Order: sequence, then C-alpha cells, then structure tokens
Amino acid sequence: MITKEVYFRARKEAAACIKAAGIVLSDQEIEKMDVADFGLGNLAVEGAQIVSLIDTDKIAMRVIALFPGQTEPEHWHTGFDGYEGKQETLRIISGRLYLYLPGVDTVSRGRIPKGREQYYTSRNEHVLEPADTITMPPLQKHWFQAGPEGCVFYTVSTLAVDARDPFTNPDIVRKTKVADNDYVANNTSYV
Amino acid sequence: MITKEVYFRARKEAAACIKAAGIVLSDQEIEKMDVADFGLGNLAVEGAQIVSLIDTDKIAMRVIALFPGQTEPEHWHTGFDGYEGKQETLRIISGRLYLYLPGVDTVSRGRIPKGREQYYTSRNEHVLEPADTITMPPLQKHWFQAGPEGCVFYTVSTLAVDARDPFTNPDIVRKTKVADNDYVANNTSYV
Repeated sequence: MITKEVYFRARKEAAACIKAAGIVLSDQEIEKMDVADFGLGNLAVEGAQIVSLIDTDKIAMRVIALFPGQTEPEHWHTGFDGYEGKQETLRIISGRLYLYLPGVDTVSRGRIPKGREQYYTSRNEHVLEPADTITMPPLQKHWFQAGPEGCVFYTVSTLAVDARDPFTNPDIVRKTKVADNDYVANNTSYV
Repeated sequence: MITKEVYFRARKEAAACIKAAGIVLSDQEIEKMDVADFGLGNLAVEGAQIVSLIDTDKIAMRVIALFPGQTEPEHWHTGFDGYEGKQETLRIISGRLYLYLPGVDTVSRGRIPKGREQYYTSRNEHVLEPADTITMPPLQKHWFQAGPEGCVFYTVSTLAVDARDPFTNPDIVRKTKVADNDYVANNTSYV
C-alpha cells in the first residue's frame, strides 16, 4: 500500500526520468503508470515505475524507470493454459542496471536489500548499460536494481500477465494499492 | 542492388536520425543496419533503413528510419510451419508516419510512388505521431511512408522472418544486395 502522495510524486519523477532518457509517452500512458511497491510499503528500496506501451495477446512492451538503487524483487514468469510463460528481453535506455540471474554468486556492484537476503537467491551479476540487450527464458528467476544514477529500460516480451508472476518473497502483492483508491496495474486485461 | 556509396551514406544518415530521435544504438547494431532498396534501385523513393534490436525465436524489435517521403512498399506477413504469421505493432518515436491499411481510399497526406499505383492497393490512411501505437494482425496488407521530416519508429512483433514476406510488387527482392558485396539482412537466422 502506498499513499496517494507517494504515488503521484513517484509518477511525476519517473515520467521526468523517462522523458530525459529520450522516450516520448502520451499523457494517457503516464496517467496509467504502475507505481509498484509490491505491497511492501517501502517504494524507494523495493519498487518500480512501469509504463505499458504495448499489450496485445502476443506481445508486451513496457518502459521501466528505477530510481537510484531501487530494486524490483526476485520473480519469474510461469505458464498457464498451454502458454509456456513470458520470454522477456531487457534493453537499457539510460543509466545502469544490475541484473541478477541464477548462477555463481558474483554480487559486487548491487546490494541486496537488508533483511531480505533469503528472498534474493539469484546472485549472478550482469551489469547492463545503454543499448545492452539480454533475453530471459520463461521460469528463469531474476531481479534487478538500478545503479547510482537510476535506470530507464524497455522490457519486450511475449504475453505478459504481471498479476500471475510469482515472487520469492511470499509477502509480495503484485497489484499496486494506493490508499483510499485501489489502483490496478494496467496490464491485467488478459488474465 | 545499391552501390556501396549509397549504402554507407544511407546508413550514416539513418544512424544520425535515430540518434537525434533519442535512441542509443551500439556500433555493432549500426554496422548491421539493413539499407533496403527492395531490389528496385531507387532507395530515396522506395526504401527503408532497418536496425534489428531484438530477434529471438518469439519476438522481434526493430527501429526503422525513413527519410522524408521514403516509402516501404506494400507487403504482409504470412505464416509457415504452424506459425500464424507476424503480429506487428508500430510505435512512432519522431516525425510522422503515413500508414496505409485496407479499407476506404482516404489517401491525402501521403503520395503513392508514381508508376507504381497497382502495387499500392491498401489506401486507408492513418497518420501517426510520436507515442502513437498501432497493431496489425498477420496477413493484413500494409505500407508506410515518412512525412516531410522523415520518421523514426519501432516495430515490435512476434517472430519476424523478413525474407519470407510477400510484397504486392512482384519485382521486389527483399534481401538487400550491395554492389560487389552481397549484403544479407541481419534477421534471417530463423529462416
């Protein structure tokens, strides 16, 4: 749960970061921005600002803005109803992204949020810069964190249904709730 | 067939347009740019500069730069081997794009290349501006032309195999040939 004040401030700041990265959004896209605190109530540490650019029955494209050091918690993409799950490609636009995948623990640039160590099991570090592109198959666990200047990046994927994504931390609630005003992520039309 | 001189000049100019539109490309991506004259030898009229950003077995993302008035000829996307064909979404980054789809003839802003009228059968005009997004199902015929300031846009789609795309003009050869140096579009790995 986040307050309206936190929601609107984060949305405004993220829209400015995205604009500074050279990406043009429509007013409608900005208004529908998902300011995701993952139900943890500490947006600056574990959170993400997500704008949906394309959401068809086959394809999704989002732009994600992370503030400096902000982390999207570890999760993966499962299949359902004959769908094998989301194949996701990240492409960095501005700043630096620390991406963590399963493998040898090489964490050095990023920092696992304190007290949450057990929920960050993927520790093979990939440092991504503008124009870097990486594809993750369905079911592969991953989490990412912005570098010290924040990060703006695209995620381009097969069908995305965020509300179905499992997270390692069982306390996480993917659908964002804004106090006094339930806010539902804008990509649930294909649930 | 285009000359090396035409190829390198178009590549350089297109890279500058893409950069001016705020998109960061790697040197490798620029080097692999497809300067497509569609075998017609008149790049400024019928041609496109295409950079592949993502090409997986499921997803393709390209950035296309069209010079002022430049036209990508009418084509569509067929299926094969159980694949229903490419579902394609365009998203405009800079400039204006005139997109033509089947329907009532409303051509007014764009101009059908002279002497090629029979190869441009889709004449329902859609004028697209930055942040505008439109999705085309497989098999839907379409062609597009840049407005007077040129246009840079993304195409995000399911699996793309350009070499398989049929064009209305039977003289078209999709694989670009550069004189003295066969140049093969960079997205043929899944043919």
